[in-house]
Amino acid sequence: MAEFKVTPWEVSGDIDYDKLIAEFGVEKLNDAMLERIKKHTKELHFMLCRKVFFAHRDMKFLLDEYEKGNKFFLYTGRAPSGPVHLGHLMPWIFTKWLQDKFNVELWFQFPDEEKFLFKQEMKFEDTQRWLNENMLDVIALGFDPKKTHFIIDTRDAGLMYKEACKVAKKITFSMVKSTFGMTNENNIGSIFYTSMQAVPAFLPSVLKGKEIPCLIPHAVDQDPHFRLTRDILPKLGHYKPASIQCMFLPPLGGVEGKMSASSAAEQAIFTTDTPEMVKKKINKYAFSGGQVSIEEHRIKGGNPDVDVSFQYLRMLFEPDDKKLQEIYRDYKTGKMLTGELKAILIEKINSFLKKHQAEREKAKAKVEKYLLKR
Amino acid sequence: MAEFKVTPWEVSGDIDYDKLIAEFGVEKLNDAMLERIKKHTKELHFMLCRKVFFAHRDMKFLLDEYEKGNKFFLYTGRAPSGPVHLGHLMPWIFTKWLQDKFNVELWFQFPDEEKFLFKQEMKFEDTQRWLNENMLDVIALGFDPKKTHFIIDTRDAGLMYKEACKVAKKITFSMVKSTFGMTNENNIGSIFYTSMQAVPAFLPSVLKGKEIPCLIPHAVDQDPHFRLTRDILPKLGHYKPASIQCMFLPPLGGVEGKMSASSAAEQAIFTTDTPEMVKKKINKYAFSGGQVSIEEHRIKGGNPDVDVSFQYLRMLFEPDDKKLQEIYRDYKTGKMLTGELKAILIEKINSFLKKHQAEREKAKAKVEKYLLKR
Repeated sequence: MAEFKVTPWEVSGDIDYDKLIAEFGVEKLNDAMLERIKKHTKELHFMLCRKVFFAHRDMKFLLDEYEKGNKFFLYTGRAPSGPVHLGHLMPWIFTKWLQDKFNVELWFQFPDEEKFLFKQEMKFEDTQRWLNENMLDVIALGFDPKKTHFIIDTRDAGLMYKEACKVAKKITFSMVKSTFGMTNENNIGSIFYTSMQAVPAFLPSVLKGKEIPCLIPHAVDQDPHFRLTRDILPKLGHYKPASIQCMFLPPLGGVEGKMSASSAAEQAIFTTDTPEMVKKKINKYAFSGGQVSIEEHRIKGGNPDVDVSFQYLRMLFEPDDKKLQEIYRDYKTGKMLTGELKAILIEKINSFLKKHQAEREKAKAKVEKYLLKR
Repeated sequence: MAEFKVTPWEVSGDIDYDKLIAEFGVEKLNDAMLERIKKHTKELHFMLCRKVFFAHRDMKFLLDEYEKGNKFFLYTGRAPSGPVHLGHLMPWIFTKWLQDKFNVELWFQFPDEEKFLFKQEMKFEDTQRWLNENMLDVIALGFDPKKTHFIIDTRDAGLMYKEACKVAKKITFSMVKSTFGMTNENNIGSIFYTSMQAVPAFLPSVLKGKEIPCLIPHAVDQDPHFRLTRDILPKLGHYKPASIQCMFLPPLGGVEGKMSASSAAEQAIFTTDTPEMVKKKINKYAFSGGQVSIEEHRIKGGNPDVDVSFQYLRMLFEPDDKKLQEIYRDYKTGKMLTGELKAILIEKINSFLKKHQAEREKAKAKVEKYLLKR
């Protein structure tokens, strides 16, 4: 089996998600749990049915509480450090679905110091610029401003730092060493940082003066942070946060690793890309499961399981199971050519981005509504 | 020579200040420097003449800048964790003198997370209570509210945390290990903390958008923090802060270590002590340099150099050099008895505390004036 690496700062290789489940000690999202979710949501998001969201922690506890009338809040986030791409949007789109279906609050964290602390060349001016850009993408997805609160680490440290200190007092350097593989040469800001990431998981409880369960939808690479958070929070009298975790949207070049803004720009589709850029990127760079010639493709068929375009449809852009199955079958049998498959995806992405970019423009006037009152 | 220890968290033993100067690499405050200070202040504070303030860093730079018209600001602080005693007041009284003589701003930091992070049993509720109490003592000393700004770490983290991250990015765990003797079992809040203590040394420059030199009057045990701060700040485009450093007011029991609120209550005189308590503490606990009997004392004389009451007069309560010399001579020759010496000190302390306690009451209505605008 190929080697792979999944940490909050690096994702690479051919990820074996079953192995990750065992290593991280998370639970698989099984059919019984999906049924239980469906009881409340009436329908299931395709990311659940297709196991894009594939693992969880403590969903049973969360739903037990919900059924007792103890509503949860959602917490997710984005460390601003570059433009938003489709890989970022995937869990946020699912988060919006959860917010709508369960009618709950969302705390969206922008840890604008994280990448500053972890990347040598990153300046605060950079993270601030990306913060302003990234907020627009989140707003563009349509989160209800009455139920959605942006929490920005440096801006809202007046609320957060004290709570982070309570977490930090319970975490030794030995613990961050073993959880994140830190060394003596890590800077002391990066060592402290996980305490800040823990805060939104219980800040709403502190502010409201009563314990509210927390559900964190996130990509699986963030699990180490929240594993530590889950160890600490009960010691502070808070619930352990539950989580629901997704796989990574693969980069254009192939189904290994994750889409990333810091790798080559042609490996990711950004929310600000033009239709021409999208067309070019997909046609030129999207790894194909097709054969080398049309003739061979017609005979042998393609492999949708490694085809990046098909995976984007499956994970993000084709909610209709029937249509997806048709594409799968047609591509596998050779009836559908790679160019045709890519054309479907290009149309889907550009149609999505057209709306997203229009909303993103409107979002510029809405930012204030999402910020915490100071 | 007896062993001694001076760190930001522990001061014990018979402190050899000359050895400390060499170890810490600070400069002795020599007569030439005192003369240069006097050029601006017209007179010298007795704590300077008597070498209670005995060491400094970069006073030459600071006065060079001052003479060029580049005024400095003062920065000192108090980590709230207990009641204020005479040992705390000593450098603050001197700081007020500096503020008045140089007509400069003072930033007074209350790092209300420090003792929470460093002391297992300390709760935030405790540090908040002491914060409220300790602010009254600082205000009671008469600092000009127009030129004095209290900066409270958890309250003002919205301003401080981002700046602390800039410092933290330049400090590795190896560096705090070697500076403070930290281990892998230190909590990650305590590891990060020194970054927060660095912030007031350059925050006024950040807020004003121009570099302003900084002078930190402090007891010598805080030097390790500022040594690190001085290494980092030039890398962030700021001046190294200058410092002027004092000895410790000894505890009642003897001239070793420092007066401390965390040791037995009878080792310290608190600002809220009644006249009777002061009288009792001095008479009962103040280590005496006198002989075991009056007869022997009249013959052999006392030793003012180890006599705690005399040291309090020298360091804090008798500004008049002539009077102090008389007391020294009379006590050394046996003309003055221990009881008489103690009576002089008791009168001095109680007269000081009477005024201080009245001002402390009035201070309750003034706190708001010293807080930073949010």
